[in-house]
Amino acid sequence: MNTNLPSLKVKDIGEQGLLKIIQSFCPADIIGDDAAVLTTTPQKSLVVTTDMLIDGVHFSDVTTSPEDAGWRAAAANLSDLAAMGAFPLGITVGLGLPGDLSVAWIEKLYQGITECLQKYNVSIVGGDIVRSPITTLSITAFGEVKPDLIIRRSTAQIGDTIIVTGIHGASRAGLELLLNPEIAQNLKTTEKTALIAAHQRPIPRLDVLPIIEEILLPISPSSHLLISGMDSSDGLADAVLQICRASGVGAILEQSKISVPSAFNHWLTPEQSLNYALYGGEDFELVLCLPPKTASALVEKLGTGAAIIGTITPGSEVNLKHENAKIPNQVLTLSQGFQHFS
Amino acid sequence: MNTNLPSLKVKDIGEQGLLKIIQSFCPADIIGDDAAVLTTTPQKSLVVTTDMLIDGVHFSDVTTSPEDAGWRAAAANLSDLAAMGAFPLGITVGLGLPGDLSVAWIEKLYQGITECLQKYNVSIVGGDIVRSPITTLSITAFGEVKPDLIIRRSTAQIGDTIIVTGIHGASRAGLELLLNPEIAQNLKTTEKTALIAAHQRPIPRLDVLPIIEEILLPISPSSHLLISGMDSSDGLADAVLQICRASGVGAILEQSKISVPSAFNHWLTPEQSLNYALYGGEDFELVLCLPPKTASALVEKLGTGAAIIGTITPGSEVNLKHENAKIPNQVLTLSQGFQHFS
Repeated sequence: MNTNLPSLKVKDIGEQGLLKIIQSFCPADIIGDDAAVLTTTPQKSLVVTTDMLIDGVHFSDVTTSPEDAGWRAAAANLSDLAAMGAFPLGITVGLGLPGDLSVAWIEKLYQGITECLQKYNVSIVGGDIVRSPITTLSITAFGEVKPDLIIRRSTAQIGDTIIVTGIHGASRAGLELLLNPEIAQNLKTTEKTALIAAHQRPIPRLDVLPIIEEILLPISPSSHLLISGMDSSDGLADAVLQICRASGVGAILEQSKISVPSAFNHWLTPEQSLNYALYGGEDFELVLCLPPKTASALVEKLGTGAAIIGTITPGSEVNLKHENAKIPNQVLTLSQGFQHFS
Repeated sequence: MNTNLPSLKVKDIGEQGLLKIIQSFCPADIIGDDAAVLTTTPQKSLVVTTDMLIDGVHFSDVTTSPEDAGWRAAAANLSDLAAMGAFPLGITVGLGLPGDLSVAWIEKLYQGITECLQKYNVSIVGGDIVRSPITTLSITAFGEVKPDLIIRRSTAQIGDTIIVTGIHGASRAGLELLLNPEIAQNLKTTEKTALIAAHQRPIPRLDVLPIIEEILLPISPSSHLLISGMDSSDGLADAVLQICRASGVGAILEQSKISVPSAFNHWLTPEQSLNYALYGGEDFELVLCLPPKTASALVEKLGTGAAIIGTITPGSEVNLKHENAKIPNQVLTLSQGFQHFS
């Protein structure tokens, strides 16, 4: 069967034909049973996360190639594991496909998924393919974490320092450049390329986990409460607000510490810049709350982009403090972010 | 918020409203992080399986209430775990929902899912809700199994006895009664009810696992190859064919040993009866291949419905042998079963 024919459709090759193609993206020994078998590490907890992505809602051929849709879906799930402090064990991929979808599209989707997974030595360990009127992708990712190093939203403590592992707003800016290629004439090509890559090929911050382990374990080998946090996939403001709500605390963020891509300076107004950073979403950085000394040590070790952006406070408000003390604090709310069913 | 209003739609209550409803079906402590954390048992392997179900393809309001759709989806995933010999740890539920779907439908779906799970002490440990033009359900189930007791399709040995854990054809007959309530006038109400229940509320055979363990462990505490098999969710013929293909063997089945519901005797012709049993599907029994003595001991212990139906042979053909030696063997093929994309 020549799957390189661009016109070949799902309905032309059937379920068995599709399975053969998909199996070429999976390790040989996991195929053929009702379920996949994985080996876990004793003394570690299992972490599980799941995401559904719908054609026209979460991805679209206008801004996203099938390769990029696959990469982004895999990256989002690995980022959810990183947000819990967990190293990935594997993912399952469920696919709902219209009969007239091209087989080439599916191959490119899997290529994008596996390109992202390979960077972290992760495999597709199972899945399901079914007929559906709308292309639907459902990914479940499994990881494991030492119980002492689980990162939770609900354990932020008053006095904790809030840090980010990188800059924010790049993904949103990249999307804008894809939707309106004629804007931002005064950006260099390299700047445009970097922003678009931030949107199309976001990087889950699994690299942060060994650094956290290196810094935290010597300080307190048995504490459960040293680290709180989540990823910024729904925006930096959303992450801080979710952590505060779950922990029953407030926060103060310093606007001047929230770093954005340098390209923003000669393109966007300060207000647009801040808006992209706070509400743009899909940057997949980690937002972490730790005791001040540990936070400083972690930021130093993480290097470029990582920064202390604020402090956990009593109360429940998240305030954004302007550099100019005369400008009043802005109170951040969840409703400024995305509403998926609106 | 009064969710009892029958007219209340998904778009009326938004993502946060939906989350509140769904959280009432989940354990309190697993909500609110990017991923769920589960504790596994040392020395056991992790087993993962995933299923996607699409409105109009896998369930339909014509034959399936939302409660039953939920039950069946949960049961199918638990059956996939049972088919690997694994005891369930939890499931995740991904939902794609049109904005004009009624909230009551979703509550009933979750009610069905949790009714099935509760029988086995299993919880929904995570999920995702997204907007989609078509109602889509994606379930991933996790379980664990002692490595020596993993049931695989690929390990059937020539000379093994093939057993089933129960009767076949009931689910297919129940579907027929739902689609054509006027047929089978000579069936008793209790018979009809039992067949319809077999279709609407199938039972995953997790109860078989402790019995397998009880019989197998004393015989060979360290063998990996004592048991092979899968579930009969795609039909009894499909199960035997898949096992044979994966193991590189053939099989001979004795037609007279394949037991069907007793109601079939005064309703269906012998041909229809056999057809329902072999190709009907969704009975969720286990089809297992073991050495003859162990197989006999297991069938005896399992009781009603369990039976020895054949033997694993050299070659690759699966032959169905008639009681009357003059009638030639029938060769079973996969193409007689369902083709999902045809």
